[in-house]
Amino acid sequence: MNTITLTTDFGLRDWFVGTMKGVILNIHPEATVVDIAHEVEPGKIRSGSFALASAYGFFPKGTVHVGVVDPGVGTEREAVVIETERYCFVGPDNGLFSYALRNETIVRIHRLENPQFFVHPVSRTFHGRDIFAPVAAHLVRGVPVHRFGPPQDERDLVRLEWTEPESMERGWKGAVMYIDHFGNVITNLPSHLAKPPLETWQVETGNHSVCGIYSNYQLIPRGKPGAVPGSAGFLEIAVHQGNAAAEYHLGPGETVYLEKKN
Amino acid sequence: MNTITLTTDFGLRDWFVGTMKGVILNIHPEATVVDIAHEVEPGKIRSGSFALASAYGFFPKGTVHVGVVDPGVGTEREAVVIETERYCFVGPDNGLFSYALRNETIVRIHRLENPQFFVHPVSRTFHGRDIFAPVAAHLVRGVPVHRFGPPQDERDLVRLEWTEPESMERGWKGAVMYIDHFGNVITNLPSHLAKPPLETWQVETGNHSVCGIYSNYQLIPRGKPGAVPGSAGFLEIAVHQGNAAAEYHLGPGETVYLEKKN
Amino acid sequence: MNTITLTTDFGLRDWFVGTMKGVILNIHPEATVVDIAHEVEPGKIRSGSFALASAYGFFPKGTVHVGVVDPGVGTEREAVVIETERYCFVGPDNGLFSYALRNETIVRIHRLENPQFFVHPVSRTFHGRDIFAPVAAHLVRGVPVHRFGPPQDERDLVRLEWTEPESMERGWKGAVMYIDHFGNVITNLPSHLAKPPLETWQVETGNHSVCGIYSNYQLIPRGKPGAVPGSAGFLEIAVHQGNAAAEYHLGPGETVYLEKKN
Repeated sequence: MNTITLTTDFGLRDWFVGTMKGVILNIHPEATVVDIAHEVEPGKIRSGSFALASAYGFFPKGTVHVGVVDPGVGTEREAVVIETERYCFVGPDNGLFSYALRNETIVRIHRLENPQFFVHPVSRTFHGRDIFAPVAAHLVRGVPVHRFGPPQDERDLVRLEWTEPESMERGWKGAVMYIDHFGNVITNLPSHLAKPPLETWQVETGNHSVCGIYSNYQLIPRGKPGAVPGSAGFLEIAVHQGNAAAEYHLGPGETVYLEKKN
Repeated sequence: MNTITLTTDFGLRDWFVGTMKGVILNIHPEATVVDIAHEVEPGKIRSGSFALASAYGFFPKGTVHVGVVDPGVGTEREAVVIETERYCFVGPDNGLFSYALRNETIVRIHRLENPQFFVHPVSRTFHGRDIFAPVAAHLVRGVPVHRFGPPQDERDLVRLEWTEPESMERGWKGAVMYIDHFGNVITNLPSHLAKPPLETWQVETGNHSVCGIYSNYQLIPRGKPGAVPGSAGFLEIAVHQGNAAAEYHLGPGETVYLEKKN
Repeated sequence: MNTITLTTDFGLRDWFVGTMKGVILNIHPEATVVDIAHEVEPGKIRSGSFALASAYGFFPKGTVHVGVVDPGVGTEREAVVIETERYCFVGPDNGLFSYALRNETIVRIHRLENPQFFVHPVSRTFHGRDIFAPVAAHLVRGVPVHRFGPPQDERDLVRLEWTEPESMERGWKGAVMYIDHFGNVITNLPSHLAKPPLETWQVETGNHSVCGIYSNYQLIPRGKPGAVPGSAGFLEIAVHQGNAAAEYHLGPGETVYLEKKN
C-alpha cells in the first residue's frame, strides 16, 4: 500500500503542500500522494476533522492519512500515529482525527519521538514537512508503528466531542457542522432520522427559517431553502443554484431542528 | 492506459475531489489521476465544457476524462460513458462534453446503469463519488464500455450549441466564450481568421472598445487592450500585465467583432 | 528519476496546469508530477523565485523543476534548462530560478531551441504547455541536456539580485521577501542572526512596529506581533491566530530591522 492523503490548513497559494510531497517522494518514490483538503480555515480543528472524516473511508485499506491543522505546532502538544484496523492517521494530538475515529477501531497509538524518521533540522513551525510527511513516507515503506516512539494510551488521546442530535418531543435538535464550497449547510442530523415519506418532515434553523426535505437539489423550490440527504450521511440545507449559508446567515454551531410537520 | 482526468465545479476547499480520487485508487491503485479544473463556476456547464475542450486533447490516447458540472444530479438526467476514437468521457448527459466532442469521432455511447460498478449506497447528491469516479476506475482497469449499461443513440445525446463566428461585410461577428485566471477574454474567433499581416485587423467589443491584434502579450501597448492569438486556438483580448475582463467589463456571451481596419 | 515539479502563476481555476500534466504524461506516462505553487501573483518573478527556492531542495536528487512565471512569453527572452549537481531547472531565462541557484552548483546551461522536443504548433502565449512541459518530460525520460539546444554561458543567465541583510551598529537591516497564506511576513534575515537568548533581540518594521522574537507561534502574546524562526530559514513576523501582513500593512520590499534590545 502506497497511498498517503494530506488534509491541512496550509492553503494552495504557497509551497507548503508541495514541499511535504517532496519530502515523501524523497523517502519513498513509489508513494501516491492525494490531497483531501488544504483550504481548511487556519487553525480550525473541527472543520479539518469533519473534512477528513467525510473522505478518509473511501481510500484503500492501508492508506496513511496525514492531517495538519496544528495551531499548537512547536509547543508541548504531542505528535502521534494512530493505527486502526483499516488505516493509519499521522498528525498532532489535538483532536483532528476525532470524527474519523468515531468509525474506526484503534489498534495502537504511538508518539512520534524517534528523530531518526524526521527531516533535520526540525523547525518549530512546520512539522508537516519535518515530522508528519517523513513519518507517513516511512510508514508506507513498511516501518512498523512502534518504531516511531513510545506507545500512548488511547485514553490520553485528545478528543473533540461529537455533538449527537438530541431527541425532542416532535423530532430532533441538531447543529450545523460545516459549510461547503457551494454554501450548503451540513448538519449533524443523520439523514435516516427523517423516515420516509420525506414530505412529512421539516427543518427549522435557529433564525426561524423553515424548509421542507427533498430527495435532491433540483426539487427544492426556486428561491427557497430546502434540506436534502447529503453525501456525508447528514441532512444539509441548500438553495437550488444558490448559496444557503450566505443567504440564511448560517455557520458552524448554529442550532437546527428536524421536526414532524403538524 | 491508466490516466483519468477530473473537471468539476466542486472547488478545492472541501473533500469532494479528494474523495473521488480515493474511490478511484480503491478500485485501481495504479491509476494516475490528473486535475484539469475544479473551480468551474458552480453549475456553469458551458464554462466546464470550454475548459475540458481546451485541455483534453493533450492527454495520452486512452485517457478517461471525467466531467462533473452537474446541477441536475439526482434527477432524471442520464449518466453516460462516451467512447471516441481516442478517449472515453464519463459524466452526466447534460452537454458538458459537447465542445470536446466537436473534434472527436464517437464510437459508442452507453448509459451508466449497472449498479455493480457504483459505490453503494449511491447518494442523490454526489454522483462524482458514487458513479463517475468508480466507472472511470473500472474503465482504465479494462472493463469494456458496454458493460456499464444499455447503448444510447448519439442523436439523443444532450448537446450545447457551439456558436460559430458569423461572416460580416468587413470581417466576423463572434462572442466571448471564457474569462481566464488572468482576466484574458477568450473568444470563439479562430486565430487564423485574422490573416497576416495582423496589423491590418482590429477587434471591437460590444461596448465599443477597439483594439489591435498583436502576436504576443508584451507587444500590447501599456494601459491598452489588445487581441492576441491565444493558446486555445482563438483570439483573446488581454491587457499587458492587467485584467482585461475587469477593466473592460467583458463576460461570456458578449459580442465581439473582428474587422479589417479602414 | 521520474519526478517533475511545477511552479507557475497560472492559478488553479483554468485548465493550464492540467494541460501541462497531460503533455508530460503523453511523453512519459511514468512521470510523477508535483505542484509546488500555482497561485504566484501573475508576473511576479520574485515571488515565484522565493516559493521555488523554499521547496525545491526537499525533492529527490534528479528532480526536474519547471517554473513558469513568464510575463515575457513569446518575446525575445530565452528559454533554458539549467543542470546543477542535484537537479534540472526548466523555464524562461528571466531570473525565476535565481534564489534556488544561490544554493546550487551549476553544471551546464542549454537553451531550449530544438523544436523536436516541443508540442506543435508552438503558441506565442503558452510555452508552459508547448516548450517547458515537453522538455521536462523528455529530460526525465533520459534525453541529455545538450540535445535541447546550444550551450549558454552562465554569465549570460538573467539573475535577480538577492538582497543580503546589511550589518548595522546594533544589528541588521533587512527586507520583507514574501507574505504567505497565513499572512506571515517572511524576511531575508536568516534566523541564526538572532543568537540566543532570543529575548535579547527585537524586530522593528519600517512603520515602527516593534516585536520580540519567540521560538514558536503560540508564545507570541495575544493580539501582538512577534517574530519567529521560520521554516524557510528566515525570521518571519506573525500574529498568533491572526494575519500579520494585513494587520501591520507589510508587503514585499518593506524594510525590517533586527536589533539587540537596549
